[in-house]
Amino acid sequence: MKGNLLIAHGGGPTAVINASLKGVIEEAKKYKDIDRILGARYGAEGILKEEFIDLGVQPQSLVDLLPFSPASAIGSCRRKLTEQDYPVILNVFKKHSVRYFFYNGGNDSMDTCLKIANVAGDYDIKVIGIPKTIDNDLEYTDHCPGFGSAARYVAVSTLELYRDVAALPIHIIVLEVMGRNSGWLAAASTLGKRKETDPPHLVYIPERPFIEEEFFEDVKYWNSKVKSVLIVASEGLVGPDGNLITDTGIVDGFGHKIPGGVAQHLSNLLVTKLRMNSRSEKPGLLGRVSVALQSPIDREEAIAVGSFSVKSAMEGKSGYMVAIKRISNNPYKVQLELVPLDKVANIERKFPLNWINSNGNGINPEFRNYCLPLIGEPLPSYVSFLSND
Amino acid sequence: MKGNLLIAHGGGPTAVINASLKGVIEEAKKYKDIDRILGARYGAEGILKEEFIDLGVQPQSLVDLLPFSPASAIGSCRRKLTEQDYPVILNVFKKHSVRYFFYNGGNDSMDTCLKIANVAGDYDIKVIGIPKTIDNDLEYTDHCPGFGSAARYVAVSTLELYRDVAALPIHIIVLEVMGRNSGWLAAASTLGKRKETDPPHLVYIPERPFIEEEFFEDVKYWNSKVKSVLIVASEGLVGPDGNLITDTGIVDGFGHKIPGGVAQHLSNLLVTKLRMNSRSEKPGLLGRVSVALQSPIDREEAIAVGSFSVKSAMEGKSGYMVAIKRISNNPYKVQLELVPLDKVANIERKFPLNWINSNGNGINPEFRNYCLPLIGEPLPSYVSFLSND
Repeated sequence: MKGNLLIAHGGGPTAVINASLKGVIEEAKKYKDIDRILGARYGAEGILKEEFIDLGVQPQSLVDLLPFSPASAIGSCRRKLTEQDYPVILNVFKKHSVRYFFYNGGNDSMDTCLKIANVAGDYDIKVIGIPKTIDNDLEYTDHCPGFGSAARYVAVSTLELYRDVAALPIHIIVLEVMGRNSGWLAAASTLGKRKETDPPHLVYIPERPFIEEEFFEDVKYWNSKVKSVLIVASEGLVGPDGNLITDTGIVDGFGHKIPGGVAQHLSNLLVTKLRMNSRSEKPGLLGRVSVALQSPIDREEAIAVGSFSVKSAMEGKSGYMVAIKRISNNPYKVQLELVPLDKVANIERKFPLNWINSNGNGINPEFRNYCLPLIGEPLPSYVSFLSND
Repeated sequence: MKGNLLIAHGGGPTAVINASLKGVIEEAKKYKDIDRILGARYGAEGILKEEFIDLGVQPQSLVDLLPFSPASAIGSCRRKLTEQDYPVILNVFKKHSVRYFFYNGGNDSMDTCLKIANVAGDYDIKVIGIPKTIDNDLEYTDHCPGFGSAARYVAVSTLELYRDVAALPIHIIVLEVMGRNSGWLAAASTLGKRKETDPPHLVYIPERPFIEEEFFEDVKYWNSKVKSVLIVASEGLVGPDGNLITDTGIVDGFGHKIPGGVAQHLSNLLVTKLRMNSRSEKPGLLGRVSVALQSPIDREEAIAVGSFSVKSAMEGKSGYMVAIKRISNNPYKVQLELVPLDKVANIERKFPLNWINSNGNGINPEFRNYCLPLIGEPLPSYVSFLSND
């Protein structure tokens, strides 16, 4: 079926979402049935406004730079589409002869993608979702492109930050890690951990309610045990009442509350309640755009997932998301497959509770086996002549 | 003069202070007069406690890894030495036959170094200061080892963060940059700026008092002019009254107040006062420990400065700090020289006022000429197909 291809990005970008874009562009160029390769400017908003970028005519040098360019080269949005938007989108598709549509995003975006597929009716269009999220919270895929790079950022940052506090042990450090509702990324802080006293000493994730008194006991314990305590906290920590323990008051386009300032809040608690010296760091969005700390495996998989989505559509598939299936862990090997969009849409995969330690303040080693291959390269080794740190 | 060499680190570490340590160790091994190469464990505290690390016997593989290991491999401290401490230190030196002493630190440490040199009396000891600070606030040196790497971190982070907000323009971003009293590091955020609308759009540094009303006007202006506003703020911003606009209430060992949370404070102001969406990032210490974003020039210079300090001491010099003199900017070329410690001790070099723009909210291009060679490699280019960002 001859027609145009359209790709749109949804939600927060990652360090490798542009790698998937390269995969889509290069695969699409192989098919005569695809006339133009279009990118929606700023995601769904670009579709509604009929603002497209002609990706098929971009210089190869720019396409080749995509996997090393963070965030989205075509723009994204957090607009929650309404029921009224879908018929408009269908008309835009018809008007612009879009016969192949790809939506690259997280679980919200997979829901959007599904609804677009469903509204098409007898208009023949192939719709495929391309997974992307640093949060790693999509179901039916071993992991999501974007997670491996963000995980590598967290793992390396934890080791480097610990070198700092170990060399100058004047305060406890609390590191804030992204992850709105799930602890996958915060857990990645433990990837360099070999023994109990290695950093991080405490990890708090949203899957377990955060209880202030237990936190104080945890910190007092570790403060008596090691010279330099490093704590990792997910930005989305919730208290026993189910509410975020810090709340910026800002709500995003999907109606999700934007959390923020957890690490500074915890650090302030240590200063004011326990009279400890403490400081906090919150690299925030820097953790999802670092090219220097990209995972090479993640980058390659992101490209492959993009290519596979086009290949699948050209084979007539529609209404699916591309998923990654791990077929071997050692050596690490994956294959790509398709899962129906209605299975993945709007479902959040939480961090497995049996990978959280019994105190609820650390991650079990099983997670390392799962996550280590995804960061693509061994973690760096750093020299220290301080034997006790 | 036969004897032992002792090196100590003072103050906050950098990404390349261990590179200088390698320079010291390897140069010292060349001299028969130097018996043992000792490192003070945790800086001045290690001297007072007679806790030394035998650096001369460490495997070469570890020494070679030093330039790629962040923070201090021998430890540092922020202890402010008292008048009583200096005679104790002299006795430790005598007891352990320390004839060559090197103190690697910032301006506080150069003061310590000077006092140690002065207290020696007729005990023959060569004392040399090795500069180090990400803040770049030492006088009589073109720049300080550690600054180039931290500057590269800030410059790359600004570009990457901007890719994120440009791709998903749902909020203003405020990036907090280290720099207790001077704006050198925050200014480095402008290194990738070619035209007025490039990020960062606003830069606030401690050399100019921060005035909230002007800040609001600045942000309103830029918010009407560009789709995605990126603001950079030094952690040590002070108001018209000369006080930090945010204050953690924590005081370090030298009696300096530890600032913190400036970016979150400014971001909250934008949300609550101007009803704008805004978020803040504060990589904090991560900016001084990133190996991936080290400046290769900075690393090489740090090694050279370490070597030169030992060479100078062996030539009989004492009471000096090693300084870097830029003899050519294009091509970039430096030579090392010695400056008397009493000139540099305790003096803070502020960011030149004539490099701040007339509105006090940006950096003039002259700074780029000065700073660009120090980051060692060209800044990366990232692809965007969004023409307006």
